[in-house]
Amino acid sequence: MSQVENRLADMGITIGEAAAPAAKYVPYVISGNLIYVSGQIPMEGGQLKFQGKVGADMDRDTATQAARLCAINIIAQLKAAVGDLDRITRIVRLGGFVNSTADFGDQPEVINGASNLMFDAFGETVGAHSRAAVSAAALPRGVAVEIDAIAEFA
Amino acid sequence: MSQVENRLADMGITIGEAAAPAAKYVPYVISGNLIYVSGQIPMEGGQLKFQGKVGADMDRDTATQAARLCAINIIAQLKAAVGDLDRITRIVRLGGFVNSTADFGDQPEVINGASNLMFDAFGETVGAHSRAAVSAAALPRGVAVEIDAIAEFA
Amino acid sequence: MSQVENRLADMGITIGEAAAPAAKYVPYVISGNLIYVSGQIPMEGGQLKFQGKVGADMDRDTATQAARLCAINIIAQLKAAVGDLDRITRIVRLGGFVNSTADFGDQPEVINGASNLMFDAFGETVGAHSRAAVSAAALPRGVAVEIDAIAEFA
Repeated sequence: MSQVENRLADMGITIGEAAAPAAKYVPYVISGNLIYVSGQIPMEGGQLKFQGKVGADMDRDTATQAARLCAINIIAQLKAAVGDLDRITRIVRLGGFVNSTADFGDQPEVINGASNLMFDAFGETVGAHSRAAVSAAALPRGVAVEIDAIAEFA
Repeated sequence: MSQVENRLADMGITIGEAAAPAAKYVPYVISGNLIYVSGQIPMEGGQLKFQGKVGADMDRDTATQAARLCAINIIAQLKAAVGDLDRITRIVRLGGFVNSTADFGDQPEVINGASNLMFDAFGETVGAHSRAAVSAAALPRGVAVEIDAIAEFA
Repeated sequence: MSQVENRLADMGITIGEAAAPAAKYVPYVISGNLIYVSGQIPMEGGQLKFQGKVGADMDRDTATQAARLCAINIIAQLKAAVGDLDRITRIVRLGGFVNSTADFGDQPEVINGASNLMFDAFGETVGAHSRAAVSAAALPRGVAVEIDAIAEFA
């Protein structure tokens, strides 16, 4: 088991099967030494979780857990891409979208649920990523958060 | 004519002139072996099409056609960038934004209009891309869809 | 002082300290010869500026100034990344998000505030970038604009 997965196991997180997309696109593309991961939503065991609009149906802290689940699903795709997660040399970028009301302003705190997991799983050097955090007007199937990613590997 | 354009011609699609942007940016940038294509909107023959908010003024299936037109315009930019579309070795990523109401949840089906065209034009290997599909609160000139892209070429 | 900073100084713009992020992510990541800059918001001297929803609390021209300030902050991050801004060989992409009402359609004009500054600072060749310009449903702390960037350096 990779060191990354050992750290995740210590947090009680098991990286399951990477979800297959429902249509004519793929969950990740490798170009050069970069992996582009498609937008991941809060699915767990094949079930959608965390459906709702942040600021109305869902509070900030719950949405932060949704972002964390998106990050777990990003890591599952990275594992599918490279096999051994210790081959990941840098999480380059996270693109975070929060399904929120028009007056919500805590997108950074929500997306921290994903950012903090990347630090905890990959460590301070590999896990240190750039990011954007904005609100979407709506998200697929009404989920609270969607996050895509770019990672570098060797 | 490139094989990609032959396939498009079989679908009744002619790749026209790439649209010039209205301001101080450019429709695509080449960096290394990647082409970054600016967000394309549903224009055809210099005219805006598919203006409206999905879930209110426009239904899902019409928006899917808007996404397909965005993809045609992405392909026009790729042709402007490399000349021969058979030089494209991979559609790396599509970033899809749907101008929708706050409760719309079928962004994946809408952006499939672009994803499916990429598969049909470039084939299953080159056309297989990563993507994100989210809703924007609004889009330029009220169009229903905007899609940007990254492609790899040789 | 770099030529880029000389040009900015002629416009009365001083590039200050790059803002540190508040959480477990970093303001920029270098991968290969690309710099990925995190989403920058309109901060000046450590203070948030340009808070409001475009089309309701704020007009288009004011939002254009907000976008210009985001671009200044992107340049500050690029300077932190490479030291000498003349090492930047291309502004590859800007990702512009406008915090607007649902019927706003002038995202291109707003993001031009950033695009025009890139041309003026880096010149027509290096400054020529691809971009996307869309509306977010909401942005961190209610700011009017957020812009992220990718730049190439040597």
